[in-house]
Amino acid sequence: MRTTMGWQADGPTPTLRRVPLERRELRPDDLAVRVDHCGVCHTDLHAVDSRDGAADSADPPLVPGHEFTGVVTAIGAGVTGFTVGDPVAVGNIVDSCGECAMCRAGQENFCHAFPTLTYGGTDRHDGSTTLGAFSREYVVRDRFAYPLPTGLDPAAAAPLLCAGITAWEPLRALGVGPRTRVAVAGLGGLGHLAVKFAVAMGAETTVLSRSPDKADDARRLGAHGLLVSSDPEQMAGARDRFDVVIDTISAPHGLGPYLRLVAMDGTLSHLGHLGPVTVETMDLLVGRKKLSSAGSGGRPATAAMLEFCAAHGITADVEVLPSARVNEALDRLRRNEAHYRFVLDMSDLD
Amino acid sequence: MRTTMGWQADGPTPTLRRVPLERRELRPDDLAVRVDHCGVCHTDLHAVDSRDGAADSADPPLVPGHEFTGVVTAIGAGVTGFTVGDPVAVGNIVDSCGECAMCRAGQENFCHAFPTLTYGGTDRHDGSTTLGAFSREYVVRDRFAYPLPTGLDPAAAAPLLCAGITAWEPLRALGVGPRTRVAVAGLGGLGHLAVKFAVAMGAETTVLSRSPDKADDARRLGAHGLLVSSDPEQMAGARDRFDVVIDTISAPHGLGPYLRLVAMDGTLSHLGHLGPVTVETMDLLVGRKKLSSAGSGGRPATAAMLEFCAAHGITADVEVLPSARVNEALDRLRRNEAHYRFVLDMSDLD
Repeated sequence: MRTTMGWQADGPTPTLRRVPLERRELRPDDLAVRVDHCGVCHTDLHAVDSRDGAADSADPPLVPGHEFTGVVTAIGAGVTGFTVGDPVAVGNIVDSCGECAMCRAGQENFCHAFPTLTYGGTDRHDGSTTLGAFSREYVVRDRFAYPLPTGLDPAAAAPLLCAGITAWEPLRALGVGPRTRVAVAGLGGLGHLAVKFAVAMGAETTVLSRSPDKADDARRLGAHGLLVSSDPEQMAGARDRFDVVIDTISAPHGLGPYLRLVAMDGTLSHLGHLGPVTVETMDLLVGRKKLSSAGSGGRPATAAMLEFCAAHGITADVEVLPSARVNEALDRLRRNEAHYRFVLDMSDLD
Repeated sequence: MRTTMGWQADGPTPTLRRVPLERRELRPDDLAVRVDHCGVCHTDLHAVDSRDGAADSADPPLVPGHEFTGVVTAIGAGVTGFTVGDPVAVGNIVDSCGECAMCRAGQENFCHAFPTLTYGGTDRHDGSTTLGAFSREYVVRDRFAYPLPTGLDPAAAAPLLCAGITAWEPLRALGVGPRTRVAVAGLGGLGHLAVKFAVAMGAETTVLSRSPDKADDARRLGAHGLLVSSDPEQMAGARDRFDVVIDTISAPHGLGPYLRLVAMDGTLSHLGHLGPVTVETMDLLVGRKKLSSAGSGGRPATAAMLEFCAAHGITADVEVLPSARVNEALDRLRRNEAHYRFVLDMSDLD
């Protein structure tokens, strides 16, 4: 086994500890990647907090982290697409069956046999629980590593691999382009990237926010307007206005007010929340509107998203912290203090 | 006022009584229609049963009926599109504001000022509560009457005006045509028309039913196959198979099993149910699926649907009863005994 260092939750408290970790020896199609930067996603926070109090010794230890960039340090015997020294990016999926209809369609994120998650997943060969990239090294199957385009800052590019692709997929699937009217609700990690993408796709892009304080931020991100969602008059005035509404609000909330902003035959796409949602059929029926949900993406879409980002100079707005401050980052994320994504610099693990 | 006879619920029991009714004198843009046939819709049953026990003397009387055919017997001074003797059809909307974006787009069913319903609605001019077409005469604004194409049996055509247009709208909006794989869940008033339409549009059409007993019916309606929804193996084998799933099941049920049948980027359209529905976001997310809902349609779509029916010889499968048997029809509808739509013959009201 290979050894590295990482940040692990293994006790009953939601605090990560610096521990040595083992990585598998390289299989023929594996890369070893030196993790330089890893974003801190809401999913990480959720995974850590879900252990709180409930963890017992039978729970496998948790190492979060599933949006990272780094450099290839070793390659398996059968790897031809990468070489040592290549800058790469990896997201929240590190394997899939490769044979089902979804994998064949390049939607490995929807693999019928379930994709192997970057952490907390089950390795398809040795059955071990995967450990994430809050760590100095990650070993990944070559198909699930992406060349990091030159010109993209590796720290600011890391969040593209989860927040980015999650925002990208619905915009692309819904055909957002120059004449599309897009609204983005929630200006966090997902939302600020959805705004940047929609603007770069040429869409008329509006930010929906509970407070008018976000107007400067919205403009800086390229949005053409801000709609204050706590103002009933503004909301009523925007009825049926947007072809696509991207809802990135992570707190529980009713979908009705956002569905009412969707134009005839348009779609509300609900991101970053897993679990049940309730909608009034009348809110869908009136205007023949659609509800969808999105998360992650397949290999072709991830590669296309990275190319688009390189072409348009898009990365996340990040605050980079040494990985030793991981618990502070999680705490501040709990308090919604990220602008817009914390990224851990793993070099302090050497 | 004009007087006619009709079937009315006005007491605390869900029984309709034969009573004289008043209709307004014709306005310049009104038609008087002799109602010959009126379908019995689940909405009628719901409206009648909602009064049960809760009705008090303050409730306006209820005359159900909102899918009917008949003949024009008088026209207002300004009517140019119809003349006495014309066969016409009327659905569940008899007026709308005519000025909002939805009305201007020909989607009067989504009128922002709310369309005037055929019964239980509020007339836009005199504020009266509209009384439905379980009656020998109806007075309707000319814009909301449709010429009944020759060749369509007036009794069997009546249900097209509510069940028909409700099934038609999502099929058309979702672009169903020759290469589309459509599944229809629930083989009632809505479902059997959805099957006929999908087949006539050239779609590969499958019926979803809890029991294999419906196979003959499905085939007779033109469906290419039947999938038994109570058979887990058949359901698992049909995962991601259909571009469009039309769910016409009126009883409360989980949407998950039906969403799992929807193909990548496909849509589950949920018809004929008003109220909240809960979906697991994972069922939408995996396969980037969409949920929509439908009910009724606008004037252009209703006219197009009637033309399509005339071209393809499509009407509802009906059991025609004299209107005096209206309470029996409602009772049998309560027990799901309609195959597939009861239609009342109003001539016994003369």
